[in-house]
Amino acid sequence: MLKVLVDCFGGDHSPEANVEGALMALKQFCDIYLILTGDEAAIRGCLEGKEYDADRLEIVHAPEVIGCDEKPIDAVRLKRESSMMKAIRMLRDRDDISAMVSTGSTGALVAAALTRIGRVRGVIRPAFCPILPTMDGGLVGICDSGANVEVTPEMLRQFAIMSSLYMEHVYGISTPRIALLNVGKEPEKGDEIHQKAHILLSETPEINFVGNMESRDLLSGRYHVVVADGFSGNVLVKTTEGTALELLKKLKKDIFSRTIYKIGALLMKKMFADEKEFMNYQNYGGSVLLGCSKTVVKGHGSSKAVSVAKCIEQAYRMEQSSVAAKTEEVILKYEHYEE
Amino acid sequence: MLKVLVDCFGGDHSPEANVEGALMALKQFCDIYLILTGDEAAIRGCLEGKEYDADRLEIVHAPEVIGCDEKPIDAVRLKRESSMMKAIRMLRDRDDISAMVSTGSTGALVAAALTRIGRVRGVIRPAFCPILPTMDGGLVGICDSGANVEVTPEMLRQFAIMSSLYMEHVYGISTPRIALLNVGKEPEKGDEIHQKAHILLSETPEINFVGNMESRDLLSGRYHVVVADGFSGNVLVKTTEGTALELLKKLKKDIFSRTIYKIGALLMKKMFADEKEFMNYQNYGGSVLLGCSKTVVKGHGSSKAVSVAKCIEQAYRMEQSSVAAKTEEVILKYEHYEE
Repeated sequence: MLKVLVDCFGGDHSPEANVEGALMALKQFCDIYLILTGDEAAIRGCLEGKEYDADRLEIVHAPEVIGCDEKPIDAVRLKRESSMMKAIRMLRDRDDISAMVSTGSTGALVAAALTRIGRVRGVIRPAFCPILPTMDGGLVGICDSGANVEVTPEMLRQFAIMSSLYMEHVYGISTPRIALLNVGKEPEKGDEIHQKAHILLSETPEINFVGNMESRDLLSGRYHVVVADGFSGNVLVKTTEGTALELLKKLKKDIFSRTIYKIGALLMKKMFADEKEFMNYQNYGGSVLLGCSKTVVKGHGSSKAVSVAKCIEQAYRMEQSSVAAKTEEVILKYEHYEE
Repeated sequence: MLKVLVDCFGGDHSPEANVEGALMALKQFCDIYLILTGDEAAIRGCLEGKEYDADRLEIVHAPEVIGCDEKPIDAVRLKRESSMMKAIRMLRDRDDISAMVSTGSTGALVAAALTRIGRVRGVIRPAFCPILPTMDGGLVGICDSGANVEVTPEMLRQFAIMSSLYMEHVYGISTPRIALLNVGKEPEKGDEIHQKAHILLSETPEINFVGNMESRDLLSGRYHVVVADGFSGNVLVKTTEGTALELLKKLKKDIFSRTIYKIGALLMKKMFADEKEFMNYQNYGGSVLLGCSKTVVKGHGSSKAVSVAKCIEQAYRMEQSSVAAKTEEVILKYEHYEE
């Protein structure tokens, strides 16, 4: 039985979405056991009237919640009784628990994971790897997307190793094509860190490095992983999400501006619904914090039930495929390069 | 009479688009005089049969072309007889010429401008400021979008000052709202450079600094200028363009997948054409290299005639409104901060 913690508070739709997502995952995987943390009465309220396997669900009461506007370090230090910190401590202390999912404050989760949960041996810093859909129906992971705004070339190589193994073992992509986010395709582009990283990535036979990528090609389907410093990786992910959302909003507004457009859109109703689903990041789960010794998955703050269920699935597959152990094996080959 | 150089080679649609764009600008502004550089026979070929005011058009023969894959420094040094370098030298040497437009290699143009054309007094480094449309029908400038992959906080302040004056005087936006591209809204987000830049921007009363911006809000219309280091600014612009293009491509493909969608799309034909025009970056001209002592405008490599004409219009308005002189005045107030 795989035990996964679900932090039920801190998201925009908490605790309802978190609890409902947990029940969905419970139905999907018969060998999963979920521990929900948060205000017990509120969680019980969400469970009322629902059918589920009560033998595989447990509630651990946590009266506090970490808000999104709280300083991460303070929250981690002071909110010991919060749903997130209780989950983090249980993840750290209990050998029978291997993963946790949270839709709460990203900053607090990163700070807590870094200070309370160990890293995979050899890993300099864990990194986020969110997943986006590509236009050919595939997926692309972006690593790092914001856990490390400052990086070294060796860190970028580790991001590549970690995310390559992740895409291979959690998403079943054999020899994923790895690119380095840069301002141009030529190896000498970018600052010194990216130039050096390009060389390091080229010298790492464990990954299928295909060169620099310009950000306009992210959704082309030509790449399975884009390696990035956390600053520009964050810009990459949020710009893609933001542009897609704004365009859909504009389309909708324009459709309602004329009757003939409304009629046309009626005929295309299913297509527009499909596009919306396709671009709905809720369907792609959350960001695994790669490089932690135990699996930590960060769901979007706006996660609904389906997204929480996806996050739990990601945690499940991370553990089933032993990505952390595989990561350690490769990373340690290059440990002497550590800066 | 305002004299503007038009480098007619190096773009995807050169020289036809460049020459046609020049003729459009010539028609639009009666007080403009254009000097076209490049292979004279080819340019004359493009002019054949066209009606235009020959008294305000001159051709300067330049037999060489700088390719997009050439190393910028080498190109600048070795291709002295190229259409770009001839234009650059004329811009430098002749007091009666105030601006130039090119759709050729960005790297070569930046290198040439930095080494051959002077900076506005006090400016540490010139920066690009491309323009994108926002969803409410407005515009947003991104400065820098790639001329400087490494920056200092003081450089970011200068980018803010330069682009604020640009948006005000070239686009008629009074007290433009300036944001700093960062990974979160809070002032303490990002690396040390962005944290310090946030403080400097807050302490500059000449600009209307409204705080950090997350990249997902670029097209919201809430900002007129986004200040960025050239690396993440480049990612921001190219991701926006790339996402919009990929989505439109996907929509088109999906429409053709079913007859009923095709019928629906037929009713919405004008709307889709409008959306396409709206997102067509050709309509928004090029990127002015702000901070040069003479105006240098870089058009997109894929520029068609309308885009070249827009670039010439940008050059015209830069000069008409004396943005460089206004920039110098503000920048010099802060010169003692220079690092």
